[in-house]
Amino acid sequence: MAKDGVKDRTRHKSNFDVDYVIHYRIPATDQEAAEAEAAFTQLVKEVSDVGFATEVRNGGKSSLLVFVKIASDKLLAKQIYRYRVQDWLYGVRTSAPNQDLEQYFKDEPVTDAERLRLAYLLITKPKNEGGAGITPQVGAWKYVASIFPLHDRDFNRQWIKQWSTKYYLDSSDIDQIRDRFGERVAFYFAFLQSYFTFLLFPAAFGFASWLLLGQFSWFYALVNCLWSVVFFEHWKMKEVDLAVQWGVRGVSKIQLPRSKFQFDHEAQDPVTGEIIRMYSPFKRFARQLLQAPFALACFVVLGTLIVSCFSIEIFITEIYNGPFKQYLTFLPTILLTIFTPTLTTLLTKLAERLTEMENYETKDAHQASFVQKIFVLNFITSYSPIFLTAFVYVPFGKILVPYLDVFQLTAQKFTTEGKPLPTKAWEINPDRLTKQVIYFTVTAQIVNFVTEVIVPYAKRKMSKAVEEVHSEISSEKKAELRVRDVPEEHEFLGRVREEAELDEYDVTVDYREMVIQFGYLSLFSVVWPLTACSFLVNNWVEARSDAMKIAISSQRPIPWRADSIGPWLNSLGFLSWLGSVTSAALVFLFHQSQHGPDGSPWDISGWALLLSILFSEHVYLVVQRIVRSAVHLMDSPGLQKERAERFAMRKQLLEQTFSQDLTEESHGPGLSGGEKITREALEEEARRISIKGNGTPEEQFWQRQRGASETIQIGRSLISEQATANITKSQK
Amino acid sequence: MAKDGVKDRTRHKSNFDVDYVIHYRIPATDQEAAEAEAAFTQLVKEVSDVGFATEVRNGGKSSLLVFVKIASDKLLAKQIYRYRVQDWLYGVRTSAPNQDLEQYFKDEPVTDAERLRLAYLLITKPKNEGGAGITPQVGAWKYVASIFPLHDRDFNRQWIKQWSTKYYLDSSDIDQIRDRFGERVAFYFAFLQSYFTFLLFPAAFGFASWLLLGQFSWFYALVNCLWSVVFFEHWKMKEVDLAVQWGVRGVSKIQLPRSKFQFDHEAQDPVTGEIIRMYSPFKRFARQLLQAPFALACFVVLGTLIVSCFSIEIFITEIYNGPFKQYLTFLPTILLTIFTPTLTTLLTKLAERLTEMENYETKDAHQASFVQKIFVLNFITSYSPIFLTAFVYVPFGKILVPYLDVFQLTAQKFTTEGKPLPTKAWEINPDRLTKQVIYFTVTAQIVNFVTEVIVPYAKRKMSKAVEEVHSEISSEKKAELRVRDVPEEHEFLGRVREEAELDEYDVTVDYREMVIQFGYLSLFSVVWPLTACSFLVNNWVEARSDAMKIAISSQRPIPWRADSIGPWLNSLGFLSWLGSVTSAALVFLFHQSQHGPDGSPWDISGWALLLSILFSEHVYLVVQRIVRSAVHLMDSPGLQKERAERFAMRKQLLEQTFSQDLTEESHGPGLSGGEKITREALEEEARRISIKGNGTPEEQFWQRQRGASETIQIGRSLISEQATANITKSQK
Repeated sequence: MAKDGVKDRTRHKSNFDVDYVIHYRIPATDQEAAEAEAAFTQLVKEVSDVGFATEVRNGGKSSLLVFVKIASDKLLAKQIYRYRVQDWLYGVRTSAPNQDLEQYFKDEPVTDAERLRLAYLLITKPKNEGGAGITPQVGAWKYVASIFPLHDRDFNRQWIKQWSTKYYLDSSDIDQIRDRFGERVAFYFAFLQSYFTFLLFPAAFGFASWLLLGQFSWFYALVNCLWSVVFFEHWKMKEVDLAVQWGVRGVSKIQLPRSKFQFDHEAQDPVTGEIIRMYSPFKRFARQLLQAPFALACFVVLGTLIVSCFSIEIFITEIYNGPFKQYLTFLPTILLTIFTPTLTTLLTKLAERLTEMENYETKDAHQASFVQKIFVLNFITSYSPIFLTAFVYVPFGKILVPYLDVFQLTAQKFTTEGKPLPTKAWEINPDRLTKQVIYFTVTAQIVNFVTEVIVPYAKRKMSKAVEEVHSEISSEKKAELRVRDVPEEHEFLGRVREEAELDEYDVTVDYREMVIQFGYLSLFSVVWPLTACSFLVNNWVEARSDAMKIAISSQRPIPWRADSIGPWLNSLGFLSWLGSVTSAALVFLFHQSQHGPDGSPWDISGWALLLSILFSEHVYLVVQRIVRSAVHLMDSPGLQKERAERFAMRKQLLEQTFSQDLTEESHGPGLSGGEKITREALEEEARRISIKGNGTPEEQFWQRQRGASETIQIGRSLISEQATANITKSQK
Repeated sequence: MAKDGVKDRTRHKSNFDVDYVIHYRIPATDQEAAEAEAAFTQLVKEVSDVGFATEVRNGGKSSLLVFVKIASDKLLAKQIYRYRVQDWLYGVRTSAPNQDLEQYFKDEPVTDAERLRLAYLLITKPKNEGGAGITPQVGAWKYVASIFPLHDRDFNRQWIKQWSTKYYLDSSDIDQIRDRFGERVAFYFAFLQSYFTFLLFPAAFGFASWLLLGQFSWFYALVNCLWSVVFFEHWKMKEVDLAVQWGVRGVSKIQLPRSKFQFDHEAQDPVTGEIIRMYSPFKRFARQLLQAPFALACFVVLGTLIVSCFSIEIFITEIYNGPFKQYLTFLPTILLTIFTPTLTTLLTKLAERLTEMENYETKDAHQASFVQKIFVLNFITSYSPIFLTAFVYVPFGKILVPYLDVFQLTAQKFTTEGKPLPTKAWEINPDRLTKQVIYFTVTAQIVNFVTEVIVPYAKRKMSKAVEEVHSEISSEKKAELRVRDVPEEHEFLGRVREEAELDEYDVTVDYREMVIQFGYLSLFSVVWPLTACSFLVNNWVEARSDAMKIAISSQRPIPWRADSIGPWLNSLGFLSWLGSVTSAALVFLFHQSQHGPDGSPWDISGWALLLSILFSEHVYLVVQRIVRSAVHLMDSPGLQKERAERFAMRKQLLEQTFSQDLTEESHGPGLSGGEKITREALEEEARRISIKGNGTPEEQFWQRQRGASETIQIGRSLISEQATANITKSQK
């Protein structure tokens, strides 16, 4: 038995058919341990009640690993069938599932993602809906640390290898992701790939324009805006297409209920007729309006921080010329590094609270609303330094910088001599804006990559090393525990224990990164046209590093479905629109300053600036309309497919049900057919009338000319009569 | 027989069951008459071939009246059934028609409108689609003057009587229209009614604001903008609702093919799989882009006319002080009256040509594109005089008016003495704007009513009187023709001959009027807050006079279907948006001038004006978003109904087809059910393994703990073990 296991382990890294691992934490105190034991018993009972096979193993670090798998194929097939039928009921699928189960699953095989999704639902759904009702970290299940599926190491290795040797990802790569990790993750990669492809154009054009046109070219701004419109509209269509192709269009309508949702009344669902729990949309709307003060608060809090640091920085780097200058230069950076995360965390908490208050029925709606708020935060922290430089520092610098003497006066109080600090004559630094944009589009992207991929990896490696050293020195108990692993399971359990410690993969973080990046391109790339080149390179790496992140540094994600990139679409649209405004303003403000020797471009009247913004924005809106209708003209192949399927389904149904009727009718009333009917009808009518006598006036009217030939005859005589009359008249 | 007829005629005005009247013109020359005779023979043959009964009568004035009715009820029922099935295939109807025809027509009776629509389609559809292929005034059928259904006099009388004694029209009134005249006409009245109801608010608020706030109040402007947003969004929802309620949602997808459409290639319809004739959408799009130069041309041509007349008017009324002033004042009006219709006709022709070039597949698309172009024309002729006064005359008057001396110089050349014409000192007339707005919102509406309703009525009465006198004097031939009418048909035929001479009812004219009216309210009502009061009164009358127009001055309209007010929705949205811009500008320019004694408000910097416009526009866009999402929250009852129907249909189908399966499954895997499955599965597995020996590693893994109870047991021992270890550790 042991030999077999060893041989097997070397042959392939099997997951032993495990569907999910429930990571169960064992508390430290005696009393809690008893509670945890009771809850554990309950857990295994519940899970096995809904049809899972269970195994428990030692999880290390005071925890258990409960392995579950769906016990019978029959149960799995039934569950999948049920969900597919539900999809069809809600209009997600166009065709009803086939009755012949065996044939059906041959035609539409079950993907990894589908099985795992259903298993997860079975574990977590409330008991009254047929699930086991396990909610990790909440209520009675507070010791359930996480429920996660296991990585397929073979697939992951192959996946990473494939992607890192490939220049360009195509749709089959995305489909692979979809089959493994579900549509939600696949949509992210599809978006990334689509964005990457679209970046090729502004990268090439940006490079050319950097060589030929220089910075602040209105032509570049125009093309860039147009590109962002086209990209946005194209993605909107592509998104629908993918959803149809993956059979998930409209799936957002039947998303998971949120467990924390509180209802204020019950009502009948107008569509399904079931009794559902409702929350007044008006109450929610009223609470949603709180987003405005929230955005304002973010703006004030983060704005103050950024403005202060900005002012200090300018004072120190450009005005101050006294001692310790080389150290003081770091002061604003230090301040920002300390306060930004603190404030952001605080505001994120607030955003969470607000979103809780809005009390959404579904997880998706909750997530969307939260994302919206987070976007506001990110918008401010990411873009306001550049906004400050471009629209405050450069144009109003000459007026505002003298006020920075405040710092000087404050500093004087603390120096013993009370004499003025040494300063130098101040001039607007015209390169500041460009440097800042380059920083955000190149340096920051690299820093981001490092913190996202390399740091966590190094951290994990290090903490593991530390742990091993630690356990070697002190804990003989643990070693003993580890020994208990059956040899053929040892490697597997080691892997599972590692995965249990990993973070969950959160796709919104990656979306946010890409959307903010798109913002730099749309808003500020007119300052430095090479922006898109930098992003092109970055995103090639990004796709691979995100894949690595999923495969190596995160638990395998639960394969949720999705029918779009969700709330990020709005953010993209907003940034694309705002780009038309900022680009116009930047070109207007800085274009001339390139020629003059003076650093300040503020020789321009306000109305001309506003007019150029107004003009640019409206051009944008008009172009958007035109592009939108052009895109619609192309008629999305996905939607076409969907309509065709619906049509075919109906036609088939019709043929099944009304077969004789349709064949009889399919010729239309036709020539001869119609004729016969008329004749018959007329003859029958005539017979009826002849029995009744004269008949009603209507019958009399329609009897004056019996059949078409009489009508023709009489008509012809009338024509010749009148024509003759006409001719005689004209001859008179 | 004659007595019977007389009695009958006095009892009720029967239409003798006629479905359609084909008005056939007899040409004057001999050769043409022969041609017309042949075509007539063909006409009757074609029509009777597709299943119509025919009768021909003398039409008076060198024409024939061909009466047709669908000959058999069976044919009618089949046709209707066919079309309803088609609707279902295209997703317009949610439920497939019942197979049991008799029951089906009892459940969903055939309305007047439905019967007439089908009959018309049967007459006009191409022969290969099962129709008779009669296209009035085109090709071989050039002598077919018109094909029209007959008015139901009893209904019309009752309708007019009912409406003129009712203060408020409700949905049953609209439904009545729908059953008689089809959805296209009904949508107009529904829109009118909805608009009327919504007008109550700005009328009341406008009156209050006229009393309390005066003209150019920013508060009024704000509320007015908000109102227009709410109205627009509400109508968008209402429109969908009505379409669902009337069962015509999506009907625009299956509209009539345009007979003049030219295809450039054939392709398979991606939805239905049929071969269809296509025209490249890109070619069409390229041609659609010609709309921009067209709009520019309209702008230049009509703009020049209006500016010229405007200048002349100002010169004459406000500067010129010489002889004939009282006559010369009329000069601009005369010029406008002569040239506006001429130029408009010319440009309308051009618009028609452009729309032809765009070569649409369907009549609806053609109509929509044409309407768009006409809207541009109407926009310029209706609003540019006010735009000129508000944004050119008042602010720039002092600079521009001196240039009007051109007229003086020109005039001098023609006067013999060559001495300067007598003029008076010029001042901006600050009341001019208000007067103009009042003119357009009150006087013009009344004039419009008169020309629309009273003039045509009077004209018809007069021409009839003239004709009668004329025929009494000269034509004994005609008298002879008339004598030939059978006495019991005499009155009926007289009526039909009258109706044959009437115009077709064109609903777009009425839409245009309302949309342009909405524009005055949205764009300029801040000048004169009583605008809405005037419109409220006007629209009460308008609904009745439009009803009268249909009932008395037009042929009965062919009851087409429609699922919205079509292209006018875009126009409404555009005007509503533009209102936010003009209102802000008007308030900004004129608000202060109310207080100062000086007539000119142009003491304001351009940037402040632009800023206020920019601000107002963006407030508008934000408010629109909020209102839109609020409206969406309310979830249109129509859409809900539709979804519910779809859901019910699917569920029913499911129950029929998969009845056993569903009942078995409806409990979900459940507690006990799941348990059993697990046990069984595990036992079976164990048995299999015991036969095979040790089994695969996977099997071994899942066999270590046999069933949930063992898992629980082992898990509990692990917990207590670890907990003890923890406690010992913490005690150390």
